[in-house]
Amino acid sequence: MTIRRMNAREPGFLAELDALLAFEGGADARINDAVTDILAAVRTTGDAAVIEYTRRFDRLDVSGMAQLELPHSELRAALGSLSVEQREALREAADRVRRYHERQTAESWSYTEEDGTRLGQKVTPLDRVGLYVPGGRASYPSSVLMNAIPAKVAGVKELIMVVPTPGGEKNPLVLAAAAITGVDRVFTIGGAQAVAALAYGTQTLPQVDKIVGPGNAYVAEAKRRVFGTVGIDMVAGPSEVLIISDGSGNPDWVAMDLFAQAEHDELAQSILLCTDADFIEAVAASIERLLPTMPRRDTIATSLKNRGALIHVESLEQACAIANRIAPEHLELSLEDAGQWVDHIRHAGAIFVGHWSVEALGDYCAGPNHVLPTMRSARFSSPLGVYDFQKRTSIIEISEAGAQKLGRVASILAHGEGLQAHARSAEMRLK
Amino acid sequence: MTIRRMNAREPGFLAELDALLAFEGGADARINDAVTDILAAVRTTGDAAVIEYTRRFDRLDVSGMAQLELPHSELRAALGSLSVEQREALREAADRVRRYHERQTAESWSYTEEDGTRLGQKVTPLDRVGLYVPGGRASYPSSVLMNAIPAKVAGVKELIMVVPTPGGEKNPLVLAAAAITGVDRVFTIGGAQAVAALAYGTQTLPQVDKIVGPGNAYVAEAKRRVFGTVGIDMVAGPSEVLIISDGSGNPDWVAMDLFAQAEHDELAQSILLCTDADFIEAVAASIERLLPTMPRRDTIATSLKNRGALIHVESLEQACAIANRIAPEHLELSLEDAGQWVDHIRHAGAIFVGHWSVEALGDYCAGPNHVLPTMRSARFSSPLGVYDFQKRTSIIEISEAGAQKLGRVASILAHGEGLQAHARSAEMRLK
Repeated sequence: MTIRRMNAREPGFLAELDALLAFEGGADARINDAVTDILAAVRTTGDAAVIEYTRRFDRLDVSGMAQLELPHSELRAALGSLSVEQREALREAADRVRRYHERQTAESWSYTEEDGTRLGQKVTPLDRVGLYVPGGRASYPSSVLMNAIPAKVAGVKELIMVVPTPGGEKNPLVLAAAAITGVDRVFTIGGAQAVAALAYGTQTLPQVDKIVGPGNAYVAEAKRRVFGTVGIDMVAGPSEVLIISDGSGNPDWVAMDLFAQAEHDELAQSILLCTDADFIEAVAASIERLLPTMPRRDTIATSLKNRGALIHVESLEQACAIANRIAPEHLELSLEDAGQWVDHIRHAGAIFVGHWSVEALGDYCAGPNHVLPTMRSARFSSPLGVYDFQKRTSIIEISEAGAQKLGRVASILAHGEGLQAHARSAEMRLK
Repeated sequence: MTIRRMNAREPGFLAELDALLAFEGGADARINDAVTDILAAVRTTGDAAVIEYTRRFDRLDVSGMAQLELPHSELRAALGSLSVEQREALREAADRVRRYHERQTAESWSYTEEDGTRLGQKVTPLDRVGLYVPGGRASYPSSVLMNAIPAKVAGVKELIMVVPTPGGEKNPLVLAAAAITGVDRVFTIGGAQAVAALAYGTQTLPQVDKIVGPGNAYVAEAKRRVFGTVGIDMVAGPSEVLIISDGSGNPDWVAMDLFAQAEHDELAQSILLCTDADFIEAVAASIERLLPTMPRRDTIATSLKNRGALIHVESLEQACAIANRIAPEHLELSLEDAGQWVDHIRHAGAIFVGHWSVEALGDYCAGPNHVLPTMRSARFSSPLGVYDFQKRTSIIEISEAGAQKLGRVASILAHGEGLQAHARSAEMRLK
């Protein structure tokens, strides 16, 4: 297989890089129209529409919503059905993710000024959150952990999971993850109809305040449309890894780390920046040798061919500058002195520091969240966290003395803006 | 004027309330099409398109972008041109807003486990932010303070303000606020073309990472479209106030507080919940008496008539339950013992506690931000704050020993998900 080589010294490199990174998401007209219809139907008729779509799209012979809710006993049974090894791995991962996220909880605060005026910020959890879990190939128990745990750590009272079961096929690992994380209710529905049910509520399913979790193009478009009625997490693009190497690592490790990203899907992006031309060739040789051994080699090959690159850079400073331009979802610093380069990185979802810090550990069990900003959005957004399930309310408690001092300032500024009722409401409190 | 009376005891009250709250935002087809064209033109031709739209929409006879940038000297001159009283009021407001927001800055953190594995979260400011300020009637210096100060407190390196000046008319208070808050560059452009220029960058205007600030329907739609390419703040709906009263206050104060919300525009929403039927009539009488004295009485009357209500409730518990359903942008607790009711409120943008805590003080100078979640989005979102201008990056530094322990867990879970390259990238690190 051939993987693109690039050289940061070549003229036109940045344009070539931008072309490699370019990705136009967005749904096509057919998806848009279907989502419009589904949202309207569920909003209008509730359960009936959800049942009808589930019969049609997931081929489930059901007549009522009760048949689409899984009892807790079934979640516990799924957990019990796993091998001891799998169950313990899930529990260990959940514990580590929980411990990390517990450090993210924000606390309410306030302060009182000399005149008795008290100002503050009250932090409260969201009441109710919907968690979308895809069915089929992309149905990942690790996603249940990564979405459910921060919500529960934040104190969300009710967490409702939806997961389609096309043809009735359930993923026991996903149900086990729901049991471990304390998901409150699980419905076997999916697609835009599940998003609509969570966003608007139905006779059976209560309206949630926020919807999180990955999904296909229909789900992504539905989430985009219901944003405002409910909160949503980011609409994710293809997954990405950028590896910065000084040639000190093991080329097989680097090749496999590139594969791990590429195996997600054909649009996933795996890029290596390396100061050592010989090491780049060694990685290319590892890719050649290891690719045939991979069960998902076709996906990997297509992803690497269309969206991957091995890029020769002049220096690690240049590599960091390019990384900041890319703002990658995952950044591996595969460097001898990796720690000293962390502060050169301004934009990344997660930084994996040193040769032992392979992305797969972060995907499953290191502790930090694996839901990370894609498509350069690490410039302005953050990993999913407890903060996504808490919100703030300003507390403004003005004393009588405070109202005298602040009222004069507010009055002047309000008159300056031509808002006389604002001014007078402040002036009325002046003695 | 007649303002709607409602009674929470009546059957059908909740349906009536929901109908009162209902507001369908969203742009119409004409606006959608115009925004599509403008975004495409600016993305393709940059400065030339921005100049052409500015000539057309703002009637400015300019031929180059340099003519559309205001030098710092002009901002300082605007500040110097204000009355001493206005300048001091602006400075006092800015100081208080800054002091409050300084309490919101998040710090990086990390912890090291026994085996040497280090996990953490690195907090960094956004590089570059665009601040949209409307022209004309809604051009508010207080909005400049409320948007610019948290960005600067967060450490944003470059803050670029855009403000249209139709017919060349500039608002000296807005320019003075830009001077006080340390805005780095100011361009006299507006509309969807300004949003496009900030989102995509042009030959003159560098691409920003996030766009904040209010605007008309074109601006709102343009922001919605460029979301993903850049971050945006919320797309705000009409402004709202909910006042909970036990009848202990001054009816004139309550009436004027309702006016202050209603004077923003005809869609603004002002609602009173009160346990005391006589007090409701007193407020209605105050409205009748005070309305003719208000310069913006037509806007106030339309807003109160179409979207306002005086609602009789049975108890303060019921009032709080209704408030949580409404999740108002602004909530005034106009109560004798207001402090004890704060914890009954789960959803609100800002809570004004007690009779002295009038919303206008919060709008200008109390300290907390006046950019608040509208249209029930306080269920899941927060006031604008320093946290909107900072982002987080996960730090994952695994020790050799950590890679042994975590690698086994990751391997089991990755095989469970059918992601063999994930598993092997972890297994390769096992000794």
